[in-house]
Amino acid sequence: MSIEAKNRRIYVLRIGHRPERDKRVTTHVGLVARAFGADGMIIGDVIDEKIVSKIKDVCEKWGRQDFYVISGVNSVKYVREWKGKGGIIVHLTMYGLHIDDVIDNIRRDPRDILVIVGASKVPRFFYEVADFNVAIGNQPHSEIAALAIFLDRLFEGRELHFIFSDAKICIEPSPKGKKVTMCGREGEGQEHQ
Amino acid sequence: MSIEAKNRRIYVLRIGHRPERDKRVTTHVGLVARAFGADGMIIGDVIDEKIVSKIKDVCEKWGRQDFYVISGVNSVKYVREWKGKGGIIVHLTMYGLHIDDVIDNIRRDPRDILVIVGASKVPRFFYEVADFNVAIGNQPHSEIAALAIFLDRLFEGRELHFIFSDAKICIEPSPKGKKVTMCGREGEGQEHQ
Repeated sequence: MSIEAKNRRIYVLRIGHRPERDKRVTTHVGLVARAFGADGMIIGDVIDEKIVSKIKDVCEKWGRQDFYVISGVNSVKYVREWKGKGGIIVHLTMYGLHIDDVIDNIRRDPRDILVIVGASKVPRFFYEVADFNVAIGNQPHSEIAALAIFLDRLFEGRELHFIFSDAKICIEPSPKGKKVTMCGREGEGQEHQ
Repeated sequence: MSIEAKNRRIYVLRIGHRPERDKRVTTHVGLVARAFGADGMIIGDVIDEKIVSKIKDVCEKWGRQDFYVISGVNSVKYVREWKGKGGIIVHLTMYGLHIDDVIDNIRRDPRDILVIVGASKVPRFFYEVADFNVAIGNQPHSEIAALAIFLDRLFEGRELHFIFSDAKICIEPSPKGKKVTMCGREGEGQEHQ
């Protein structure tokens, strides 16, 4: 299915990002957001143009040039405006309600979703403003894994089949090697290693 | 269900780890391995006692003191020995076969699984030695997300309900706050923030 068939907008707000310490983790958050069918990632409160540019490069090559990515946005203001426009807030936290107990309600709700993922300690404001505090299991693990599982459950696995129609290069699944093709041009596959 | 009900051993081999660059990502790989029901993580070829100790600390507090974690193991030798003992190798790579096309075969196979996740460029040896090169969608994203989705599919979501019987502290799922309890002692929950 084409990703355009989605019926609501989903953005990811990354809060508490510390540029040196979190650069790779926040990059993975952005790449997962893009690959798993969210529509954008906002890095709250901190400017980090390197990550923005890295994710835009991936979109340019692998598709989803419409994926929105920006840093340095005031998180509290953004969240308030999101709610003001009628969207809902899902905060991923190990302290929240188990995803299996809330995902059906979230999926049925037609409103746009802002998914908040924290790095360092998350201020109480975000727990309180969230419509859903959701735990991907109540164990410490990773905000990257949490985001992936949340989007996977939301889309019921369909996100791993989304086609990004503006991709320049694509992978042809292979049992042993690496096959990369110019998208849509069959027979041009090359073995890479 | 208790994690002890699993009928096969699953280890994660992290290859290509670069201590400075990958410390947080590799830590997340280990935490996901533990939380999502694998039995251990091996950091190949590079000694990194800080990560080993960090993950052991989490096991000490949150349970799974039997979770095996070690660094500095020769990856090629380890993989060969794993196969020699009759285990299978699953290598997670965006170039592999789509997880939806292979997961049933992997789940049905009763043998122990070594899951390989790479950081930097993965040598061809690992593609060739793998029984399954598996793509969690053929898009660039994150080895942390890939591992989480792989284990989630393997356990069909049951891993998010595993009970770790030796946990010292547990979370009581909460719609707004943070409730941490001494495990198994009801009524001792405290509100944290």
